[in-house]
Amino acid sequence: FLIQEFSGKHYADISEILYQLDGPSCKYILELLGPDVRADVISDLEEDIRIEFLKQYTAEEVAEVIDHLDSDDAVDLLNEQPIKAREEVLTAIQDSEQAAYIMELLHYDEDCAGGLMAKELIRANINWTVKQCIDEIRRQAERVEKIMTVYVVDDHNILMGRVSLKEIILSKDDTKIQDIYVPEIALVHTFQQEEEVAELMQKYDLEVVPVVNVQGKLLGRITIDDIVDVITEQAEIDQQAMAGISENVESSDGIWALTRARLPWLIVGMIGGLFGAQFIGVFENELTLVPAMAFFIPLITATGGNVGIQSSTIMVQSMAGSSYIHDTLWDHFVKVIGVAGVNGLTMASLVFGFNYFFAGPELAMVVSSALFCVVMLASVMGTVTPVVLDRFGINPALASGPFITTANDLLGLGVYFSVAKMLLHL
Amino acid sequence: FLIQEFSGKHYADISEILYQLDGPSCKYILELLGPDVRADVISDLEEDIRIEFLKQYTAEEVAEVIDHLDSDDAVDLLNEQPIKAREEVLTAIQDSEQAAYIMELLHYDEDCAGGLMAKELIRANINWTVKQCIDEIRRQAERVEKIMTVYVVDDHNILMGRVSLKEIILSKDDTKIQDIYVPEIALVHTFQQEEEVAELMQKYDLEVVPVVNVQGKLLGRITIDDIVDVITEQAEIDQQAMAGISENVESSDGIWALTRARLPWLIVGMIGGLFGAQFIGVFENELTLVPAMAFFIPLITATGGNVGIQSSTIMVQSMAGSSYIHDTLWDHFVKVIGVAGVNGLTMASLVFGFNYFFAGPELAMVVSSALFCVVMLASVMGTVTPVVLDRFGINPALASGPFITTANDLLGLGVYFSVAKMLLHL
Ligand SMILES: [Mg+2]
Ligand SMILES: [Mg+2]
Ligand SMILES: [Mg+2]
Ligand SMILES: [Mg+2]
Ligand SMILES: [Mg+2]
Ligand SMILES: [Mg+2]
Ligand SMILES: [Mg+2]
Ligand SMILES: [Mg+2]
Ligand SMILES: [Mg+2]
Ligand SMILES: [Mg+2]
Ligand SMILES: [Mg+2]
Ligand SMILES: [Mg+2]
Ligand SMILES: [Mg+2]
Repeated sequence: FLIQEFSGKHYADISEILYQLDGPSCKYILELLGPDVRADVISDLEEDIRIEFLKQYTAEEVAEVIDHLDSDDAVDLLNEQPIKAREEVLTAIQDSEQAAYIMELLHYDEDCAGGLMAKELIRANINWTVKQCIDEIRRQAERVEKIMTVYVVDDHNILMGRVSLKEIILSKDDTKIQDIYVPEIALVHTFQQEEEVAELMQKYDLEVVPVVNVQGKLLGRITIDDIVDVITEQAEIDQQAMAGISENVESSDGIWALTRARLPWLIVGMIGGLFGAQFIGVFENELTLVPAMAFFIPLITATGGNVGIQSSTIMVQSMAGSSYIHDTLWDHFVKVIGVAGVNGLTMASLVFGFNYFFAGPELAMVVSSALFCVVMLASVMGTVTPVVLDRFGINPALASGPFITTANDLLGLGVYFSVAKMLLHL
Repeated sequence: FLIQEFSGKHYADISEILYQLDGPSCKYILELLGPDVRADVISDLEEDIRIEFLKQYTAEEVAEVIDHLDSDDAVDLLNEQPIKAREEVLTAIQDSEQAAYIMELLHYDEDCAGGLMAKELIRANINWTVKQCIDEIRRQAERVEKIMTVYVVDDHNILMGRVSLKEIILSKDDTKIQDIYVPEIALVHTFQQEEEVAELMQKYDLEVVPVVNVQGKLLGRITIDDIVDVITEQAEIDQQAMAGISENVESSDGIWALTRARLPWLIVGMIGGLFGAQFIGVFENELTLVPAMAFFIPLITATGGNVGIQSSTIMVQSMAGSSYIHDTLWDHFVKVIGVAGVNGLTMASLVFGFNYFFAGPELAMVVSSALFCVVMLASVMGTVTPVVLDRFGINPALASGPFITTANDLLGLGVYFSVAKMLLHL
């Protein structure tokens, strides 16, 4: 009955069902499935859950799962195993070709092209005929589930180009691969970062991209499904950078992990706040004379924060989106100043109008002038910081995060009290 | 010479070069290219730039470009034309099949599956042999550039399943499609939102997905490259929501567009700040008695903001990532309280230690108690708001934006002064 229930279901659907069950039940259900689907389901589970789940498995059982996975997923799974278990699992792998694939892929860092590539692909020698190529497809049919494209190499395994399955279907058996292959081809090197691979595949609308080493030898391929995951993960990391969360946590993580990810940036903000307190403390006498000055502290700091986040987000997105440059950096800067000027003047006038009646003309003048200066300064800072961070190899999205907000709070206070001191002649 | 320079280049590379040139030069260069590449380059340009550029073209010239595009891109391009020009362009399209495709696709909203799908695909009747299917592939070879998979339909065009090109290559010519096709297949309906399509393709690792109408008739297909663009765009929109930018602007847009996108949320923040000023004004007497209270206003508001953004971002990501639920909502809530408690206690203790010497035990107690309450309240608000926004069909990422920051500022001030009044018996 259970077999009926689960057979024919997609592995992604089965793994969703398993999240509702405990470890032993999951294992029992997985035993009922074929080894191929079982392996795919396990590979589809979320990392923490899979690590926990596989603790029930012996090295032989883990090896059997790995045997039925694509080499890229197999390596990921092996890397999650405790270090001392890995050797044992590796020797227990039945399929010697798969074992060799995995040994090779283990060398690459998981965030570069080498760490994303799978060894499963169809390779055709440039001197072959279409018939020979079809024979190769038949030979590899089991191992390479989705072929997508056939890669053409010379006798030294140097990547020469590609030929589509459509072309193979429409060509006669004795056609030479030489005569039908496409020589221009987008490719990546093993050492390229995953973000670069994602950018390239997105730019050229690719479903799959070949990976070569420095000599141009064909080593593997990266498929778009894994790149979609990279893009989604990168977007999450950027959002977390903006929110001041320092590790890649999920709401399903434990209290301790969540606290550890959040507390550091909160403490940065706290230290900023205590500095701010010290700073305002310097103006204690002025505050006693004009206590109404304190009323507008939140207005000034909030505006600085909001403007800074807006400016840095626009800058970060324009940096990420473009390998080309619409405007020069100078044009961009002039525009930032322009936008800040319009926004600053509008807000300053509105606040002046309100405060003229609420707080009197003098204080209204102080608050509005300070507000305008804060908008200008926060815009410039928000625009420059992502560029600087990027230069130092830091994720520029951090510029929209708590560090800049904190800095802007202090900046805002400084401007506010300086302007006040000047205009009120305190 | 120029022809040599550009021939063989990928359209995405050519469009990058064109960004550097003015309109007439672009047009001149494009004239040198073949009509297919020309159309692809134009379709690859950024929307605003393309709209501007195509103003140089007559209706006939636009129609010729559309003739050489995939139907999905053709419709997008037509929709960008001024309304009165569209009719003229439509009648100027030479290829009557393409014109019919476009007329059909014009009906769909651009943010749903119908708006993303292309009509170009290979369709095989379930009663055909492999030979007949190959003939169909040959007939459509020109129109369908990337086949990806062959869809199997019955006599009424009802989608029955799919058959891969690999299967077709490995089967004999007289094999029945019936005997080799895969009946289970992921599909989408024309009315489904683009986010749903993206989620489905990501979940099942698809490169292409068929689109059917309510009767199950096969209408078109959506390819992963367009979904990658949807995912990227959605990530940008979420970031902008977090940053308080209300339209999808880019740094390349004009000053006016940028101001219009940014000013509304700045004004929300400003109104919040003025409310805050009024609120603090109520405590003017207390502030005169204990002016040091004003020192800690930025600390309180900044902490509330930071905690609120962290909580809501974690909640938004957990809502987006999961069609399944690891924890129940209640478990989640308990954990939020737990994390907030740990963070709040840590920060309150640190601030107390610092303030004990800097501001005296009484005020230290006030600030730390208020800080703890603010952390708890901001956590709860940050967690609840995305859920509420989502219920009302609003992008939950807005919960990490300026609206919540502003609300948290006011909340923080309220807590601070209430605690102060209570503990200092003012
Ligand atoms: Mg498999
Ligand atoms: Mg990674
Ligand atoms: Mg990997
Ligand atoms: Mg693209
Ligand atoms: Mg893979
Ligand atoms: Mg995968
Ligand atoms: Mg703030
Ligand atoms: Mg074309
Ligand atoms: Mg859209
Ligand atoms: Mg469209
Ligand atoms: Mg996936
Ligand atoms: Mg398309
Ligand atoms: Mg496209």
